[in-house]
Amino acid sequence: MRVLFAAPARLWDDWAPALRAACPEIDLCRDGDPASFDALIYAPGYPEDGSQLDFSPFVNARVVQSLWAGVERIVTNPTLTQPLCRMVDPGLAQGMVEFCTGWAMRAHLGMDLYPQDGVWRQGETPPLAADRRITVLGMGELGRAVASTLSGLGFDVTGWSQSGRAVPEISVFSGERLDDAISRAEILICLLPDTAATRDLLNQTRLGLLPQGATIINAGRGTLIDEAALLHVLDENPSARAVLDVFRTEPLPAGHPFWNHPRVTVTPHIAAETRPATAAHIAAQNLRHAMRNEPLIHLVDRHRGY
Amino acid sequence: MRVLFAAPARLWDDWAPALRAACPEIDLCRDGDPASFDALIYAPGYPEDGSQLDFSPFVNARVVQSLWAGVERIVTNPTLTQPLCRMVDPGLAQGMVEFCTGWAMRAHLGMDLYPQDGVWRQGETPPLAADRRITVLGMGELGRAVASTLSGLGFDVTGWSQSGRAVPEISVFSGERLDDAISRAEILICLLPDTAATRDLLNQTRLGLLPQGATIINAGRGTLIDEAALLHVLDENPSARAVLDVFRTEPLPAGHPFWNHPRVTVTPHIAAETRPATAAHIAAQNLRHAMRNEPLIHLVDRHRGY
Repeated sequence: MRVLFAAPARLWDDWAPALRAACPEIDLCRDGDPASFDALIYAPGYPEDGSQLDFSPFVNARVVQSLWAGVERIVTNPTLTQPLCRMVDPGLAQGMVEFCTGWAMRAHLGMDLYPQDGVWRQGETPPLAADRRITVLGMGELGRAVASTLSGLGFDVTGWSQSGRAVPEISVFSGERLDDAISRAEILICLLPDTAATRDLLNQTRLGLLPQGATIINAGRGTLIDEAALLHVLDENPSARAVLDVFRTEPLPAGHPFWNHPRVTVTPHIAAETRPATAAHIAAQNLRHAMRNEPLIHLVDRHRGY
Repeated sequence: MRVLFAAPARLWDDWAPALRAACPEIDLCRDGDPASFDALIYAPGYPEDGSQLDFSPFVNARVVQSLWAGVERIVTNPTLTQPLCRMVDPGLAQGMVEFCTGWAMRAHLGMDLYPQDGVWRQGETPPLAADRRITVLGMGELGRAVASTLSGLGFDVTGWSQSGRAVPEISVFSGERLDDAISRAEILICLLPDTAATRDLLNQTRLGLLPQGATIINAGRGTLIDEAALLHVLDENPSARAVLDVFRTEPLPAGHPFWNHPRVTVTPHIAAETRPATAAHIAAQNLRHAMRNEPLIHLVDRHRGY
């Protein structure tokens, strides 16, 4: 099986050994005749000259397997007619669960209320998790995993998704009840994909619905939040906080107002790293499915965009 | 049933309604003839003149129910011959689980490695929880609850207790393997009681066994740690951190070196608050057991000290 590794060169060292270990029958190539490839493994940033990849010469490719979960930079490429699969790496989901749980706990416990200034501030005990309302926007694989973990820790969790599709043991608001989902959120965790429907979903009106002192954790996509509106709402809601792992421009430029805002924490898009050791097995499985004409895993719906 | 509420007056407003609701047959008194009381509900700080309470005139008291889990300030009182019970409040255990989980997640995710200085620090992704070693010292009710929760989140958890008594799904080191338990701990959570055997357990030699960059979370008792030794070890281990909720002197004095140490976080003994709503039911149950000569719950072993 000839596979083009259509990813920036810097990823080769981490990924090639993992992919070859997971799929010994693979002939993993850096380049070659497009028509000779049975499949592509793709990551954003390829080609490295910044141009958009032309998928049309890959006439025999049965699948394009993305290495990342987010495919918004490729799904709109008009030359991409081959089946496109997202990477839903079990290590990535676990990393996302840990990131969101950790920052939710930090907000819940009010860790930032204890500056080390020599003042013993007793009497500000936080409520127990059962009395802390968390809303998770997005009930995909990641959102469900985060919601279930927080619910397991005892938090009062609801989810929201466009479809409102049922999730075991989680109460899920659907499309039109987005405002209710936001209004209750002492901690709001954003795990939606970037699509035409989610862009600027968290605008000034919706962010204004958050309770006083709410914490917004965005580990989904930078485009979900209107950045200027968020800054405005942080001014209006003077104990609100934001933990942002994703941005419209990454790396976040050095002069950006998020960097110096006392109630904004910037993390460098680390919430969910795809880990070669676990992800290579998913990619290998999909390549084999493609060769045998079996249904693909995490096949992207071009209409929905994810 | 006549019960003396032997606690500082400031606790009366929170506790009296909860106790009366949980135990309507109670005649809860502020004072009266010692021989008239069937039981005492006790909290440190009584009597408020700072003297030590003389329990000997309470000749008909069948139980002294502490409102707190830690009984070291009363267990050594030679006049206390009545059965003494600790409070193990389900709300307290839950609060402790949340505190330790939150601060362990903060250490695990390296949250303090992201100062908001405009620098995008990619490439420092933490390992997954499965690759993070946590040791919990103390496998009592609180230690077991914390260890189980962290294990459920995926961490590589071991416990240590003097007896090494088995705990479902947790590997537990016993007495003589304390050094092994400490040596492996990237995160060390201390939940031991204060007894003659645990005082200064974490001395300079033992703290010196911690791996580089370890985080110590002490939510047990201040006496477990030799404070000067901890400061010394933080100097020797320049990325180690400590989160301290309990101290030898509380409130921690304003000039104490812990306040200004860049890698020490002081919290004001908030990890586990006994919550009247949940604890009153435990107290009520024990008072009834005492009146019926039934076995008491969390009866203190005077020899062990807890």
